[in-house]
Amino acid sequence: MKKHNFSAGPCILPQEVLKQAADAVVNFNNLDLSLIEISHRSKDFVAVMENARSLVKELLNLPEGYSVLFLQGGASLEFLMTPYNLLKEGGKAAYIDTGAWAAKALKEAKLLGDVEVIGSSKDKTYNYIPKNYTVPSNVDYVHVTSNNTIYGTQFKEFPKTDDALLVCDMSSDIFSRELDFTKFDLVYAGAQKNMGPAGTTLVVVKDEILGKTSRNIPAMLDYQVHLSKDSMFNTPPVFAVYVSMLTLQWLKDLGGVKAIEKLNKEKAALLYAEIDRNPLFKGFAEVEDRSLMNVTFNLTDESTGEVFDKIWNEAGISGIKGHRSVGGYRASIYNAMPIESIQVLVNAMQQFEKEIKN
Amino acid sequence: MKKHNFSAGPCILPQEVLKQAADAVVNFNNLDLSLIEISHRSKDFVAVMENARSLVKELLNLPEGYSVLFLQGGASLEFLMTPYNLLKEGGKAAYIDTGAWAAKALKEAKLLGDVEVIGSSKDKTYNYIPKNYTVPSNVDYVHVTSNNTIYGTQFKEFPKTDDALLVCDMSSDIFSRELDFTKFDLVYAGAQKNMGPAGTTLVVVKDEILGKTSRNIPAMLDYQVHLSKDSMFNTPPVFAVYVSMLTLQWLKDLGGVKAIEKLNKEKAALLYAEIDRNPLFKGFAEVEDRSLMNVTFNLTDESTGEVFDKIWNEAGISGIKGHRSVGGYRASIYNAMPIESIQVLVNAMQQFEKEIKN
Repeated sequence: MKKHNFSAGPCILPQEVLKQAADAVVNFNNLDLSLIEISHRSKDFVAVMENARSLVKELLNLPEGYSVLFLQGGASLEFLMTPYNLLKEGGKAAYIDTGAWAAKALKEAKLLGDVEVIGSSKDKTYNYIPKNYTVPSNVDYVHVTSNNTIYGTQFKEFPKTDDALLVCDMSSDIFSRELDFTKFDLVYAGAQKNMGPAGTTLVVVKDEILGKTSRNIPAMLDYQVHLSKDSMFNTPPVFAVYVSMLTLQWLKDLGGVKAIEKLNKEKAALLYAEIDRNPLFKGFAEVEDRSLMNVTFNLTDESTGEVFDKIWNEAGISGIKGHRSVGGYRASIYNAMPIESIQVLVNAMQQFEKEIKN
Repeated sequence: MKKHNFSAGPCILPQEVLKQAADAVVNFNNLDLSLIEISHRSKDFVAVMENARSLVKELLNLPEGYSVLFLQGGASLEFLMTPYNLLKEGGKAAYIDTGAWAAKALKEAKLLGDVEVIGSSKDKTYNYIPKNYTVPSNVDYVHVTSNNTIYGTQFKEFPKTDDALLVCDMSSDIFSRELDFTKFDLVYAGAQKNMGPAGTTLVVVKDEILGKTSRNIPAMLDYQVHLSKDSMFNTPPVFAVYVSMLTLQWLKDLGGVKAIEKLNKEKAALLYAEIDRNPLFKGFAEVEDRSLMNVTFNLTDESTGEVFDKIWNEAGISGIKGHRSVGGYRASIYNAMPIESIQVLVNAMQQFEKEIKN
């Protein structure tokens, strides 16, 4: 049965990427060897790593002076690496608290120094993006989470930071929209949304910001160590990097970030329009902060849930149950999600309306 | 062409595991979804994680009171996690320096406290395992690297630690031989030798040793955090864990660690016998410390290298060039390596002898 996979992550990947990845697990580059049983220092895998890095630079339109890393540990390890690499001894960092992941990020930073939460939407279960905040003049960096998967909110405008560095966790919306990366100093993203499978973390860093904290940084947490070894300080997660490369190539072939942003806007508009029109649903996030990646919505009458759940289940839809902290539904519509699947969901919502009316 | 893959890691995996892994990348458990695009919290993946953990316990014959984790970051991140979790504030750790990896491990520990190197074989390019060392009475733990891939040495007897904990990096020989795990308090291993692909790290820990350092441990470095979440504090490396589970199942079906140890001894004996017999080769490691996993040897006359290299290349052998610090050759003969491939290498060594004689 054709499935429509709205999982929040790990999530849908392009079908052709899955096919290529499976082939490489049996026979990679016609070597008569599997991708996962060759040395990461072999020329075939070094070429994968270099190609992946180069695709990131091209797709994000990164200027000179930025480097790309593929690491391990997910965004969660970056929560620790950020202050280790950027928070000066005795320094201070500013965080905007837009949800569970932002809160986890700032918790780790507190282990290494002073943290000021300059904005938070915790008062309304994180259903909006704080806007009336002031960036203090004395902070080393400002940290934001660009898209909040659980709540379905997304930064449309990023903080203006004059002296402070701007750090962004883009795990769930990188490669989904055009952004001016010269505004950012450090960007990281777990691969398992728009870039590939779980198991690798993308880091984009402005070279000149590193090496300035005077901290004694453990090797595996030190961006400069990883940069000096081209992401091969230790054995990289070969499969995850390879599938990321394939996914980035797929995006490039499709027209790049500009082209996918147009599609993402059409997809989101189709679904949000149905949520706003259909009296049985209400959106969770504030309209102006709605995410293009994670569409969160609740039933106006929760007692109708069983009826709706049966309908979408029968339509082959999976992964749309909302996070326990928000309830309701979350349709994650990442880059690889075709608009046809969203139409299937919209149809299910309309069928639900008809059944309830009768 | 049939390949004989002697790569030191990532390395050979069982052919049937590669086939099953490739299938799951396209359609996992007949879900009509890929293994790498479903939620790690779905019941299908949770079952994989539980099965992998349970296979580890069974294959290593772990007693009650030990827990199993699948993490990220390789042994290199464990180098840091070990002192964070076990080295008390103001405490001291003892390390035995048997090579590049042991040296990296102790370097990270030095960031958090006092480290005493109680034994080292650096004086002879690590071609032996130190034996006449004394375990000090006042250390929190003793750290050893059970098998040293670069040099081809392996601990046959482990340190007797009375009060101190025993920590072992078993990245390159776990699951290759029967050991009494009640002697160890913490064991870790990057998956990419005998367990699976690069991208996950196995940790076996005795529960009662944790939580005793009074350190404020960052979440991602805290074994207790990972244990409390069953290795799902953050998104696990789904593919690497799944392929590890398949490989562990393969080992169980084959008869477990006892059966593979017998095969590993036969394989190693065949190759070492030829090294000792053939006048054109000499073993690198001291005979009594020879590894069953990585067989290191050099030419007695280096000028003959081109002749030998041509012969093994034509035989379909790959991955036997020695590490740059040792030179010569390294045949890694992990669990999944069939004895037939070792015979092909022995044949190549004998053909080389004939050609040189003529």
